[in-house]
Amino acid sequence: MRTTQFKVLEEVSLNNPIFIEGLPGVGHVGKLAVDHMVDELEATKFVEIYSSAFPPQVYVGENGIIEDMKNELYYYKTEDEDANDFIFLVGNCQALDTDRQYELCGSILDLVESKGARKIFTVGGFPTGQQVEGDRVLSAATDEETIEMLKEADITIRSADGGIVGASGLFLALGRLRGMSGACVMGKTPGYFIDAEAAEEVLVKLNQLTGLEVSTEELEQRAEETRQMILKAQQMEQEMMNRAMAQQQQSQEDLRYIG
Amino acid sequence: MRTTQFKVLEEVSLNNPIFIEGLPGVGHVGKLAVDHMVDELEATKFVEIYSSAFPPQVYVGENGIIEDMKNELYYYKTEDEDANDFIFLVGNCQALDTDRQYELCGSILDLVESKGARKIFTVGGFPTGQQVEGDRVLSAATDEETIEMLKEADITIRSADGGIVGASGLFLALGRLRGMSGACVMGKTPGYFIDAEAAEEVLVKLNQLTGLEVSTEELEQRAEETRQMILKAQQMEQEMMNRAMAQQQQSQEDLRYIG
Amino acid sequence: MRTTQFKVLEEVSLNNPIFIEGLPGVGHVGKLAVDHMVDELEATKFVEIYSSAFPPQVYVGENGIIEDMKNELYYYKTEDEDANDFIFLVGNCQALDTDRQYELCGSILDLVESKGARKIFTVGGFPTGQQVEGDRVLSAATDEETIEMLKEADITIRSADGGIVGASGLFLALGRLRGMSGACVMGKTPGYFIDAEAAEEVLVKLNQLTGLEVSTEELEQRAEETRQMILKAQQMEQEMMNRAMAQQQQSQEDLRYIG
Amino acid sequence: MRTTQFKVLEEVSLNNPIFIEGLPGVGHVGKLAVDHMVDELEATKFVEIYSSAFPPQVYVGENGIIEDMKNELYYYKTEDEDANDFIFLVGNCQALDTDRQYELCGSILDLVESKGARKIFTVGGFPTGQQVEGDRVLSAATDEETIEMLKEADITIRSADGGIVGASGLFLALGRLRGMSGACVMGKTPGYFIDAEAAEEVLVKLNQLTGLEVSTEELEQRAEETRQMILKAQQMEQEMMNRAMAQQQQSQEDLRYIG
Repeated sequence: MRTTQFKVLEEVSLNNPIFIEGLPGVGHVGKLAVDHMVDELEATKFVEIYSSAFPPQVYVGENGIIEDMKNELYYYKTEDEDANDFIFLVGNCQALDTDRQYELCGSILDLVESKGARKIFTVGGFPTGQQVEGDRVLSAATDEETIEMLKEADITIRSADGGIVGASGLFLALGRLRGMSGACVMGKTPGYFIDAEAAEEVLVKLNQLTGLEVSTEELEQRAEETRQMILKAQQMEQEMMNRAMAQQQQSQEDLRYIG
Repeated sequence: MRTTQFKVLEEVSLNNPIFIEGLPGVGHVGKLAVDHMVDELEATKFVEIYSSAFPPQVYVGENGIIEDMKNELYYYKTEDEDANDFIFLVGNCQALDTDRQYELCGSILDLVESKGARKIFTVGGFPTGQQVEGDRVLSAATDEETIEMLKEADITIRSADGGIVGASGLFLALGRLRGMSGACVMGKTPGYFIDAEAAEEVLVKLNQLTGLEVSTEELEQRAEETRQMILKAQQMEQEMMNRAMAQQQQSQEDLRYIG
Repeated sequence: MRTTQFKVLEEVSLNNPIFIEGLPGVGHVGKLAVDHMVDELEATKFVEIYSSAFPPQVYVGENGIIEDMKNELYYYKTEDEDANDFIFLVGNCQALDTDRQYELCGSILDLVESKGARKIFTVGGFPTGQQVEGDRVLSAATDEETIEMLKEADITIRSADGGIVGASGLFLALGRLRGMSGACVMGKTPGYFIDAEAAEEVLVKLNQLTGLEVSTEELEQRAEETRQMILKAQQMEQEMMNRAMAQQQQSQEDLRYIG
Repeated sequence: MRTTQFKVLEEVSLNNPIFIEGLPGVGHVGKLAVDHMVDELEATKFVEIYSSAFPPQVYVGENGIIEDMKNELYYYKTEDEDANDFIFLVGNCQALDTDRQYELCGSILDLVESKGARKIFTVGGFPTGQQVEGDRVLSAATDEETIEMLKEADITIRSADGGIVGASGLFLALGRLRGMSGACVMGKTPGYFIDAEAAEEVLVKLNQLTGLEVSTEELEQRAEETRQMILKAQQMEQEMMNRAMAQQQQSQEDLRYIG
């Protein structure tokens, strides 16, 4: 009934991979940055994840072909044999139900741990609700050692100033309970739009932290494409926001409450 | 506990049936069109579906007899032995919980697949939130081949312009994962009322796509009957919209939050 | 995990009992009427029902003693050996989750069916959202025969004018699927307060339908007591309505969304 | 899938421990009071509770180290061998889903009962929605005997004036069904802020009821620290309140409802 399916496309062997998560969230900062890493590195998809925990819907893609709601794992092997390989988690959604967030993150950790991953970077946006000022990238981590590493990369450390909701927080918490370490790297964003600038700032820091050299040149173009796609849809934004209400009205339009 | 019951009324053998879904949704376009097909073709009901995933309620029908919340499958055998038969899914509701949408759509696909169905048409409304202009029927599909077929029927193809929520999207996604192909045929509608005009436009295209010859003459009358039924109920619409709140108030009226 | 406990206090044998439901709902019409029947008839409690489907809370009763959220079954044996006995369902709440409404109603039907019940009356309020005019009692039923019986009792039959949400609707639907028959007897009420007048009108009709002779004299006093209890609580009504929001704020007050 | 993990740090043997609950709630009165008791008594943590029923998130603590969502059990052994020992339940969250509140409270009662606990004090805030007047501490209990004990401590007894939502109510209800007795001790609070004054009043009464001698001196400072932490976060409060909506918008920004 409550199903999650891991469709393994390739049984890959990796060298101490670092696990990097970039699912949709505030300002799409995480998704934009990690999708871009996957593209630029020409990483290889090796797992597709389908789940009844995802929203019951599809997207309409280019040329009218529907896109499933899904998450995907990509790997990237570094040329240096001794260096860490990478696993990237990307997708077009997160789990809807809160307890299934736990379930999905746990299942994904099972898989990446079985590939030898011991280190996690989750990537997200930090909503400011206003124009962004000051340091553009913030971070929090599972342990002191990782905090030190973040400081060496000149990343501002958050302190007792709130929380991290969703996969970006949960992967760190559930990972630490398994002895993994990691950090959430957050780009400050007003939070209201697809924020390529925030994604770029985050990407620069991720390069520093991972030793990767992902170009940020194409990032603005990628964001622009996403924006165009969204603009088309915004004529009906009001409808979308009213969806839940409309759905309820529709199904209850000839209905009265009795008890 | 979480139960779904398929009450099979007839063990029917069908010839490569095409599966057509028309459950309630925006503007009731899909429901109106497919209910009408079932009636005009005098299709035969062969499965009733009851589920704890449906809203916990009943409708009051003609003469005070209550109507269960349920979905139903009808079949229609074409006279030409080599032509496709049809299976129609109609009903007065969709599943409430998102993960049970997956469960129900999956179970229904199990059944129609066991009857030999490999092709799916889902039918719905496309909310414009304003008076409808331009092309009246839009579509999206699981694959290029189906897109070509839609184009031959002069149906406008959507492109990267949003999504399809609920059964109409999910049947296509879950079907494609089983190797089925299909399309969602959508009638543009303001989305605020029972839209017979949109249903008619959709029905004309469905005739083209399926080779069926369903008359649209009675469709406006059917819509009118539905509207009358709804008008009676609208005097209390305000109450209905407040139902959730009222229910909460009622059950908590002598309650205070402590923590 | 998801538990429902039936605590059977007495293994009673009944003669073709009629099952009467009166759980909380709009205007507390059903609860008020059936609680009153139980009291006036001095019916005997034989089952207590506890469930994790109920709201996670307690009420504070007289003298500060807490009251569990629960449902209860009472029986009443008529003096005439050939006449129907009665089972009453009362309580201070309904199930919260929609699918657990199905589960609970199904479990309760299992039990009352095992006692020989084949006939159901559910009792509720019909919200008008304004001052009540015209016929005070409305009804809908599972079948034509019951409709005729209602007409003989001069009860107005609803027709294609909406629905019945919650236990009052679901018991009829799930009962009918088991071959039971029944009706929902609804008292028109503005829906905004504990409506003793509506409960009294309903009670008069229930007497007619069941052959019981429950006095309605004390009903207004019972309603008055309930109102007093509620009035005390209303000073903080604003807080109560904001409960959900407050709870969320509290638990997230030092939280920010990242994704 | 739906997991709750009790990580037992120490297998402790206790003498008729009294179980005291102080999870987050209105005005953080319960959390503040019981956290303070744990600190002042230098109680020993012996169980950590992790659950997929908790919000899927982490808090960012001092120095950027993330804090898991969790509940914790502490014990305190009194010097007098014949006197009751104590078990304290504290944490940074309650279960999100209503039926999992039942599950979690039940599991925790299993554990504390296995340690010999037969008496429960739950601690919470009583929201007044305005400046607090009159008696500052209210209570309700499982039984007459406990009510008498509360009266001896000059605690005002609530009467038929509402309810107690969440863990503070549920522990009493579920405990009583197991034959345990107990009371909820509530500090009146406007409910809008971290209320150290209410926590202090409650703590004074808890000292009386338990024979403990917990100083209230540091309580205001503790509250102040909490307030400072929260103030930092309040610049973005609007964002936080809009979180649910924003999340929905984000995931559906290029989505339209079809049905």
